[in-house]
Amino acid sequence: MNQTLTQAGYAAWLRYVRVEDECRREEYRTRCAEIVLATDLPLLQTAGEELARALEAMTGSAPRVREGDPPSGAHVLIGVIGSGQSEIEAAAGEGGNPGEDGFVIRSSGSGQSSCLVIAGATARGALYGTFHFIRLLQTGASLDHLRITEAPVNRLRMMNHWDNMDGSIERGYAGRSIFFRNNRIVEDLSRIRDYARLMASIGINAVAINNVNVHEEETKLIADAYLPDVASIAALFREYGIRLYLSISFAAPMAIGGLDTADPLSPSVRAWWAERAKAIYREIPDFGGFLVKADSEFRPGPFTYGRNHADGANMLAAALAPHGGQVIWRCFVYNCQQDWRDRKTDRARAAYDHFKPLDGKFADNVILQIKNGPIDFQVREPVSPLFGGMHATNQLLELQITQEYTGQQKHLCYLVPQWKEVFEFDTHAEGEGSTVARIASGFLYHRPVGGVAGVSNIGDDEAWTGHPLAQANLYGFGRLAWNPLLTAGQITQEWVQLTFGCDAETQRIIADMLLRSWRIYESYTAPLGVGFMVNPHNHYGPNVDGYEYDKWGTYHYADHYGIGVDRTLETGTGYTGQYHSPLREIYNSLETCPDELLLFFHHVPYTHELKSGKTVIQHIYDSRFEGADMAADLLDTWQSLRGKVDEACYTRVLERLAHQAEHAKEWRDVINTYFYRKTGIPDAKGRQIY
Amino acid sequence: MNQTLTQAGYAAWLRYVRVEDECRREEYRTRCAEIVLATDLPLLQTAGEELARALEAMTGSAPRVREGDPPSGAHVLIGVIGSGQSEIEAAAGEGGNPGEDGFVIRSSGSGQSSCLVIAGATARGALYGTFHFIRLLQTGASLDHLRITEAPVNRLRMMNHWDNMDGSIERGYAGRSIFFRNNRIVEDLSRIRDYARLMASIGINAVAINNVNVHEEETKLIADAYLPDVASIAALFREYGIRLYLSISFAAPMAIGGLDTADPLSPSVRAWWAERAKAIYREIPDFGGFLVKADSEFRPGPFTYGRNHADGANMLAAALAPHGGQVIWRCFVYNCQQDWRDRKTDRARAAYDHFKPLDGKFADNVILQIKNGPIDFQVREPVSPLFGGMHATNQLLELQITQEYTGQQKHLCYLVPQWKEVFEFDTHAEGEGSTVARIASGFLYHRPVGGVAGVSNIGDDEAWTGHPLAQANLYGFGRLAWNPLLTAGQITQEWVQLTFGCDAETQRIIADMLLRSWRIYESYTAPLGVGFMVNPHNHYGPNVDGYEYDKWGTYHYADHYGIGVDRTLETGTGYTGQYHSPLREIYNSLETCPDELLLFFHHVPYTHELKSGKTVIQHIYDSRFEGADMAADLLDTWQSLRGKVDEACYTRVLERLAHQAEHAKEWRDVINTYFYRKTGIPDAKGRQIY
Repeated sequence: MNQTLTQAGYAAWLRYVRVEDECRREEYRTRCAEIVLATDLPLLQTAGEELARALEAMTGSAPRVREGDPPSGAHVLIGVIGSGQSEIEAAAGEGGNPGEDGFVIRSSGSGQSSCLVIAGATARGALYGTFHFIRLLQTGASLDHLRITEAPVNRLRMMNHWDNMDGSIERGYAGRSIFFRNNRIVEDLSRIRDYARLMASIGINAVAINNVNVHEEETKLIADAYLPDVASIAALFREYGIRLYLSISFAAPMAIGGLDTADPLSPSVRAWWAERAKAIYREIPDFGGFLVKADSEFRPGPFTYGRNHADGANMLAAALAPHGGQVIWRCFVYNCQQDWRDRKTDRARAAYDHFKPLDGKFADNVILQIKNGPIDFQVREPVSPLFGGMHATNQLLELQITQEYTGQQKHLCYLVPQWKEVFEFDTHAEGEGSTVARIASGFLYHRPVGGVAGVSNIGDDEAWTGHPLAQANLYGFGRLAWNPLLTAGQITQEWVQLTFGCDAETQRIIADMLLRSWRIYESYTAPLGVGFMVNPHNHYGPNVDGYEYDKWGTYHYADHYGIGVDRTLETGTGYTGQYHSPLREIYNSLETCPDELLLFFHHVPYTHELKSGKTVIQHIYDSRFEGADMAADLLDTWQSLRGKVDEACYTRVLERLAHQAEHAKEWRDVINTYFYRKTGIPDAKGRQIY
Repeated sequence: MNQTLTQAGYAAWLRYVRVEDECRREEYRTRCAEIVLATDLPLLQTAGEELARALEAMTGSAPRVREGDPPSGAHVLIGVIGSGQSEIEAAAGEGGNPGEDGFVIRSSGSGQSSCLVIAGATARGALYGTFHFIRLLQTGASLDHLRITEAPVNRLRMMNHWDNMDGSIERGYAGRSIFFRNNRIVEDLSRIRDYARLMASIGINAVAINNVNVHEEETKLIADAYLPDVASIAALFREYGIRLYLSISFAAPMAIGGLDTADPLSPSVRAWWAERAKAIYREIPDFGGFLVKADSEFRPGPFTYGRNHADGANMLAAALAPHGGQVIWRCFVYNCQQDWRDRKTDRARAAYDHFKPLDGKFADNVILQIKNGPIDFQVREPVSPLFGGMHATNQLLELQITQEYTGQQKHLCYLVPQWKEVFEFDTHAEGEGSTVARIASGFLYHRPVGGVAGVSNIGDDEAWTGHPLAQANLYGFGRLAWNPLLTAGQITQEWVQLTFGCDAETQRIIADMLLRSWRIYESYTAPLGVGFMVNPHNHYGPNVDGYEYDKWGTYHYADHYGIGVDRTLETGTGYTGQYHSPLREIYNSLETCPDELLLFFHHVPYTHELKSGKTVIQHIYDSRFEGADMAADLLDTWQSLRGKVDEACYTRVLERLAHQAEHAKEWRDVINTYFYRKTGIPDAKGRQIY
């Protein structure tokens, strides 16, 4: 517990702390004294080095690492199934071939005759198996009778970085970009290597390094001048099983190609992209593909030429297909120049209205990236109906790890419980059990590819994420992307143990803080499913009317009598009709709509009685007071951990929790005052409202 | 009328257009064929050159300019009273010595025997007299029997530039700084010369070139490294009778002096400033002095050391006094970290509360610069009670020419009518007639110095002020600083004629647009004296709650029942008590408080009946609808001038008026919707509210 924040925070969940239990340490040392790599694949090298590094730190002695056949003495064998090595094949025979990126871990014997096998379905699987094995060591597990078979549920497990080449990060709250500085790619790649290693350890296999809002300089990332630099990042990623993606500008043929059009049906445009793809793959043979934000928030796109999103995406897909690349096309498309006076246009409808009619029209190497909610990463939204709306299109669930609307890494807001609700959300697209998890993975509709993308929360901050506890969101994202069936409790327990490695009571306290934090944040910010009570541009609140008279389609319509957006079929925007039965009926009816989403779907009087038995206005008051109290309680709780966690980390978290407690009061008072002033209805409990 | 915007806009009111009337042109040519400068003073050179330039452009022939004795033939003689030249002394004998900066203009004879005398009380007076004479030529006046004696009412007529050394201008809406670029003083001073000429033509005699918020680099402007560059601007100003001032950081002794304190009573600090003053005057013998924003909005000041504003100002004054310099000390001091929940603290009280107790404590070369209103340059505020509060302190009225809260030079808002109300405001400090004009000039209390400072609205825009019609504010400011008794009508008529020089009907239309524009802007923006219904930071609206839950002390307290700030003696903040009788009673009473300031002084129900007979809520609705209609009418009116004014200017104004008309609708709808939603009271006329 003597690391500085830099050391402890920087290592994140890969802190390899000396094993305290002497017997266990001896067991690890003995059984892992020799690491054998079955073949000379580079990813096995990475795995072997990582395991050796972990073992040396945890046991105090460095294991031997070599290639070749396993010895008769104790050893760890890392290999790839199907290579013919007998111990590997035996393990696979017993454990079952886990399929792409999966692995089998088997142990037999003990002491000097111990044999530990990590057998990947692919070399990448072997690397993931090694990191899994290291997690076992970090948590002090016995190595007897290991019988593990794991495979990722999602084929694509992706990070999206909103990094700009000037070094800024859009919606970044943890310093500057680790990829770019002063309109160049950074020269020292060591930090990127450390990042790749962190990502590999949680199974991430795809990273888009630049912002989906592709500005002038970033448009040139696919030009010859930049490709060698991009390729060096890709090479480094490759060592960790990660494919590099680039966000591209749809107008690139004009901006950097000298063409006078970017029309996706123009032969010259198609030829230009094909040539670019070829150039890229010459430098980066395993280039992942393009991430595209088109016809969205002033980004160029196919609409300019009277073409649709399928035309645009398929054109790029055709350029990439010969090389095995993918197009990831974002569905965050809506009218961002809406007149606030217009109550007919509904931003929530937009993604579905745009993309549902195109279902089945996209090439096989196109994947539509869909935000979890229909609006924009609010603390509470329904799940996007687009997930249940398409059955012949590859889909990728987009989650936001960076806390744009959820406290900007100043507030503690652990999002794994929210994401779990999203994964488990039953669209009823094919009857009960048609969860988002099964749709995004491609499982429900037997799609060739699918998965999850997360908008990164890291920067060049010494602890990666600003708020040290925000590392839990990064870790949790990766674990859920690997397997959405993991529970929030499991993931949290894992992360706390790996990160703090401290006594059980401390672990319990931190895990409890994390697991409560999302609902606490919700309880003092925007109530009952309305969102965007934040300041324009910076998206930090409170500002109840911050987006009420704006062009972004984000309104609550609070007046003296009531609040909420009528999205019902009969009197509202009809958004509820985008859901399958019984969801559409549940949301559409005031009687069955869940309280927490009430104001998202309905405009109701403040005196409307919730299922909780409270009126809307009293709920607003009560939850703001309770929320602020709970935020203060988080601070108190953390203070009980003084001396039990790393001091630098303690202090940094303390400062942020102190800010959070104070800012939660500001949220409480502004929201309560706003509604008290508007409604004239006093708090039933007579508490102070201004 | 064929100039481009660049030519016409850049020349501003110094457009020297060929005289169309042939007889008049011949008269000017004949009578001004020779310009004689009575002495070799540099300012007379400037005057002679300017007059020659004007005459050549307006008559087509260049007059001769020379020094010495006047000839027997027709001539214009420019000189300084008291130099012994007989024609000059004769003119002064007849016209009376006008005193500092004043002048006499006399004409006699005609044709070849014409004698025109411009006799300044000082060389600067002679320059002002020359510009006055040029105005006569520009307006086609006859030169017969000129009998003019003029002197400025205000000794100090100052421009404040909020320019930063990076080239940005705080609250600037007309491009970048003409003084600074890339943290250097600009190399090419020609634009500064043109600016100095413009300023001299309206009588400005003092210019502070850098922002009162003095940042790191700007703190060094008084350091040796920058002084030579500053001196070259000062030298150029000198040719136009302008003294250069610098805004300084009170913490300069620490920031650049290597001291560990800036305590105004510390001998080392006093010595440091004295040494700096000496260094400055070595480079700039006529340096004006320091402009200081201290202990205001996070600026350093004497409070840090337990000293008061008099301690701080007098310390600087002592350093400057030996050299004839002045300290201009701003009174814009208030708590900008107020809790919006706190209704007792009242920002409006702050300047008076801070400075009234210090009356009589300031050195003779200290001048307190007081904003016209107690808050901050809103479209409607009462006049600051501090003007009537001090009788033994030099005062300088601060007006804002740049349209921070009044449309940012996108909206037409001609401020001369507002300023006239300020000048004519009767404080009753010494009974009736104790106007702000008489106090600021120093007249009422026989102060050695006083005057007016205006926050500049110019930048490197080709037409100086962005909105071409905003030049009228700059011109009007100078004219009022010269003589606050000039009427808005006179000044407007002058400016329109000088700038557009067009037919009487066009002049009438433009003047009418200008004179209506302030009340039009008021009518669709914040109602009845509440302010700050704008977006934070950029101060552009509408945003009714933009500053309601903020720390800046700017609230309207609108709830379901009523709106306004109770500043009465009995139940409010007691601010009304800062005024003399009968103002305090007038403002304090709901019965006598003027409608337009009602919500500044009182919190009233929306159903309160105004003197106009309307309720507050109906007034809000009506004036928003009328205001938006009038803004639309400004656009229509301007369109009637197509072909009658310079085409480029026409187009630029047209674009801005079109934006204004549209934005006025936004103001109308946001404000009306806000109050309709909050009150539930419908518009009596049933118009569309959202």
